[in-house]
Amino acid sequence: MMSVEEAQSRILAHVPPRKTPELISLMDALGRIVAAPIACHEDIPGFTNSSMDGYAVHAADLAKASRENPVSLEVRGVIAAGHPLSRPLQSGEAYKIMTGAPLPPGADAVIQVEWTTTPAPGRMSAWAPVSPGQNVRQAGQDMRAGQKILEPGTVLSPPLIGILASLGMDHVPVMPKPHVAIVSTGDELVPPGQPLGPGQIRNSNSYALAAAITAAGGKPWLLPPARDTKEAIASRLAEAQTADIILSSGGVSVGDFDWVKQVLEEEGQLELWRVNMKPGKPLAFGMLHGRPFFGLPGNPVSALVTFELFVRPMIRTWLADANWRRLTLALPLFEPFTEIQDRWHYVRSRLVTEHGQLWVHPYAQQDSAVQSSWIGADALMIVPPDTGPYKAGEIMTVMLLRSGF
Amino acid sequence: MMSVEEAQSRILAHVPPRKTPELISLMDALGRIVAAPIACHEDIPGFTNSSMDGYAVHAADLAKASRENPVSLEVRGVIAAGHPLSRPLQSGEAYKIMTGAPLPPGADAVIQVEWTTTPAPGRMSAWAPVSPGQNVRQAGQDMRAGQKILEPGTVLSPPLIGILASLGMDHVPVMPKPHVAIVSTGDELVPPGQPLGPGQIRNSNSYALAAAITAAGGKPWLLPPARDTKEAIASRLAEAQTADIILSSGGVSVGDFDWVKQVLEEEGQLELWRVNMKPGKPLAFGMLHGRPFFGLPGNPVSALVTFELFVRPMIRTWLADANWRRLTLALPLFEPFTEIQDRWHYVRSRLVTEHGQLWVHPYAQQDSAVQSSWIGADALMIVPPDTGPYKAGEIMTVMLLRSGF
Repeated sequence: MMSVEEAQSRILAHVPPRKTPELISLMDALGRIVAAPIACHEDIPGFTNSSMDGYAVHAADLAKASRENPVSLEVRGVIAAGHPLSRPLQSGEAYKIMTGAPLPPGADAVIQVEWTTTPAPGRMSAWAPVSPGQNVRQAGQDMRAGQKILEPGTVLSPPLIGILASLGMDHVPVMPKPHVAIVSTGDELVPPGQPLGPGQIRNSNSYALAAAITAAGGKPWLLPPARDTKEAIASRLAEAQTADIILSSGGVSVGDFDWVKQVLEEEGQLELWRVNMKPGKPLAFGMLHGRPFFGLPGNPVSALVTFELFVRPMIRTWLADANWRRLTLALPLFEPFTEIQDRWHYVRSRLVTEHGQLWVHPYAQQDSAVQSSWIGADALMIVPPDTGPYKAGEIMTVMLLRSGF
Repeated sequence: MMSVEEAQSRILAHVPPRKTPELISLMDALGRIVAAPIACHEDIPGFTNSSMDGYAVHAADLAKASRENPVSLEVRGVIAAGHPLSRPLQSGEAYKIMTGAPLPPGADAVIQVEWTTTPAPGRMSAWAPVSPGQNVRQAGQDMRAGQKILEPGTVLSPPLIGILASLGMDHVPVMPKPHVAIVSTGDELVPPGQPLGPGQIRNSNSYALAAAITAAGGKPWLLPPARDTKEAIASRLAEAQTADIILSSGGVSVGDFDWVKQVLEEEGQLELWRVNMKPGKPLAFGMLHGRPFFGLPGNPVSALVTFELFVRPMIRTWLADANWRRLTLALPLFEPFTEIQDRWHYVRSRLVTEHGQLWVHPYAQQDSAVQSSWIGADALMIVPPDTGPYKAGEIMTVMLLRSGF
């Protein structure tokens, strides 16, 4: 059976060509991905300014200031932020200056207000020296005209949106969200709002996958579930071909009504089937109607774990997110883990902080039909095949299911 | 000066009363927070079913099956998912059965198709025994009628949305998003789309804070910036009073035009001013027009770090997210960190994986006006006051700026 790593690299060889970037408002840009290099067209800050509330001075004037011998200067006025002055500062003079206000020409330092007194109206007295450049932010100190600031593929977090605003951009070119179609299959499926008949279950995969697509940066498109006939599945998957990526769930194992793989073989190209992992073994991947197609397993846990390991990487790679891999930590086991599997095992787990340390706590119930052990789970513990049992305290590899801000 | 911890606990004592929950569609539920206990009203699965493609049998019939002496049973038909059978299984019989299909009455095990052969039409032959319950999922194995499934305060991730669908819910009661008003202050501010005059800078805080509010689960409301007069600030903040939480940025330090604290003292109640941290010392917090009010510093880095440490906790606490604290890791320093501060220092850093291990890599430039060192930063390294220099490899406390899925 194919390894997870090989399946991942084969799948990522089929990332579709990217779409034309779209220009969106900064107010909608959170979590979106930059689609073109962003450069700085002017120095930021654009002018040398004070980093303190204090007095703009010639540092040389205060060279000998001390508590015993404070130096007194004439205060020529007040410079507020947004109100630059053109008159140069002369020796023996100071301007009161506010944080962010432009330094007057000639001034080379700011002494903070806390190190001064006002002996008389129109005068200040400094009891400490300042060195040239002290409490001064030079023009271009943060970003320089001509400098490349953000690379394509950068995820826009709140501070980066602030940087774009500082650069004067109220719109930003981002990668369009891929449209991802979801076709659940199965005669037993009923939509969540309807009562169940005998032998029926709710279609939960469509909703869980839709949320996973949204979280990964795609735009989900729910088609009605397909019944378990070859024709129904083929026709629903043909409907889905206007999407950029097509997912199905169910019908991909070795049952008599598992038509998905056969439809893919007949109407597209099967690239791989079955991966050496648990949950999720019966994954099918290939190209269908010119689109990447994932036949995900029908068990709800398997569907989400294969989404995490294969579909999310494709969406993030398509979006050019160079940093798409989940953060992986080495953490001690909170309690023994005795289950031994002959495949790579992705174990729903939560992180717990106890005794001043972080631990991984796998849930006892790992059956792939048991959805409830996702509750509180925020990580997958990765257990190699044919290893274990593991004792409490042993160091495990843990993939964090977090990527936001 | 007040410690970060004390400021946090004082601020969280002012979390406003919650609003009435709103009912939203599952398709819009990602990242929202459950507002009422969610219970299960029927067993899930609702019927005992097969976890394999195989044959439903009486386990007793196969008790002696082996490779040498396979046991042959009459195949009475095929049970597909969604198509239950009412005829009981008799001894000596089997039904072919698909994953997820209901077991026929009387059957107590499923033998997987891989352990069987079909010696003749209408017959199967098993070359291994199965024990009662093998490959069978019992009704109620995942969730039981009457069981509490999700507590209020649970963040809805993709798998939990799947669980709600399984429970038959197509809508879910969630906490309404708090409306958070943002008033930037300063004569020097120009909107990002407009050219700069002398001494002017772009209003970046409004956009960065709006994104931070969205990421924290609130709904941002940008008011036009206020000019640096007491009247302008007071009147803009009065406009903001229909919001649930009010933020300002700038005008809260010791400058001549820093009116925010005074407005808060005159028109509301100042609860605290100045926190022992860097960046972000000049934070003001209190109640204004009956709302929690945060006077955030004007430096863009300080504004976001104080948002992270004080505003985000208030939003998440209001939303009842019991698990709002960021994940904090103990990680080795990637290179020396020599800066020593007299306050708790929140250092923009990124995580790097090198030599098979995760490290924290603080950026060199930590000036609170330098936005560009947020690029690539996904963590804040927390350095206690008056400590350091630290050598490469020393273990540091690192707060991960991630919370998504």
